[in-house]
Amino acid sequence: MVTAILNAAGSSSRFISSTTNLPKQLCLLNDIPVFLWSLNTFSKIEYIDQILLMVSQDIKTRVQEYINSKIQDQSHKLKICLGGESRQESVKLALDELTNQNYQDKVIIHDTARPFVTKSIIDEVYYSLKSCKASTASIKVVDTLKKVNTNNSYEYINRENCFLIQTPQGFEFKTLYQCHLKAIEDKCFFTDDTSLVENYGEKISLTNGSILNFKITFANDLILGQEIAKTF
Amino acid sequence: MVTAILNAAGSSSRFISSTTNLPKQLCLLNDIPVFLWSLNTFSKIEYIDQILLMVSQDIKTRVQEYINSKIQDQSHKLKICLGGESRQESVKLALDELTNQNYQDKVIIHDTARPFVTKSIIDEVYYSLKSCKASTASIKVVDTLKKVNTNNSYEYINRENCFLIQTPQGFEFKTLYQCHLKAIEDKCFFTDDTSLVENYGEKISLTNGSILNFKITFANDLILGQEIAKTF
Repeated sequence: MVTAILNAAGSSSRFISSTTNLPKQLCLLNDIPVFLWSLNTFSKIEYIDQILLMVSQDIKTRVQEYINSKIQDQSHKLKICLGGESRQESVKLALDELTNQNYQDKVIIHDTARPFVTKSIIDEVYYSLKSCKASTASIKVVDTLKKVNTNNSYEYINRENCFLIQTPQGFEFKTLYQCHLKAIEDKCFFTDDTSLVENYGEKISLTNGSILNFKITFANDLILGQEIAKTF
Repeated sequence: MVTAILNAAGSSSRFISSTTNLPKQLCLLNDIPVFLWSLNTFSKIEYIDQILLMVSQDIKTRVQEYINSKIQDQSHKLKICLGGESRQESVKLALDELTNQNYQDKVIIHDTARPFVTKSIIDEVYYSLKSCKASTASIKVVDTLKKVNTNNSYEYINRENCFLIQTPQGFEFKTLYQCHLKAIEDKCFFTDDTSLVENYGEKISLTNGSILNFKITFANDLILGQEIAKTF
């Protein structure tokens, strides 16, 4: 069994759309809201048995309306759940839901702010779980990598063996849940689930992501997304 | 006056095309070789007076043939020059050529392995040179950033204020040339020209690049490039 946890509960704090005033998940790319792109992709994958879509209270009704009107085949076991204050809390709430179901198998987590994920990216993460307990889509850094410090000093980071970590990320449920419980105990916060799990000693397998699987973060990204959406 | 230095002299060491056996600069994206995409874009910009296209000996004839057959308007002052062993050496050879011309003004350097550069990205670099001596297109890192060390240990790099440095990069000629001469003296090698110049104390202005302005590095990138080329 595989459950997909699709996180659409972000606060869009870095995202200010001057034209629509909408949170990024509801902004339209070729007439389809951001969150629905990856939901559609995951919905079509035969080995995914259940999808938990994590949303914030303020967009829940709109999300439900979009799903009713835009997803024809609703045979998939899709459940819309309330997320938390942070990305990490939203994932933890999804894992609590799975615990209530006595769920024991694999989970694949994806941020719906990455609308252009493809089946082959998801497949790579899924199949890698046959030989590891945690894996993530990633891309190798090939550009010069520069860090500008707050005092305006800078440093160049050796890009050799540097990776940008994307989602989807796949896990054995038990491993992920136990690490999340420890992180709460330790009051530790992480920007993604593989770094959380790795912090507690698990090895992560890196699979191929894609430049197009970028995260819509700033308003400008929506313009780029709109261009890509036309042809995706 | 502005001279564009377009670097197509790379050895494609990380690029192995299984289907064509061609160096990446000559691989076709929608029937146009990689190097010609950005050359076309630069050719149409009115404030660019001269273009130096740096190529390696083994592709020079093919590059010339493509230019003869594919570029209709050849009024632009385009000069094909032999590059060096490394990226840095190729740029230095271009600067030597400009010194022979008694050139004193601005240069914009671009790696033609980034075919999808746009006029607006080039414009931002160019106009920023009104208030600084060096600038570069860049994008902010929004993904988790992970470094895998050779002993398989890892570290997570705080992504806050981290930037991926792209090209085009703009410079006052004199500043850039003097720094290149110092780098030769010091036997220092850099992955791009802004880090070279910054090493000798110049401040760099960061302008907006784009995710689509990625560098074709691995064979897989060509597949992605082909998709983008269809609609660019």
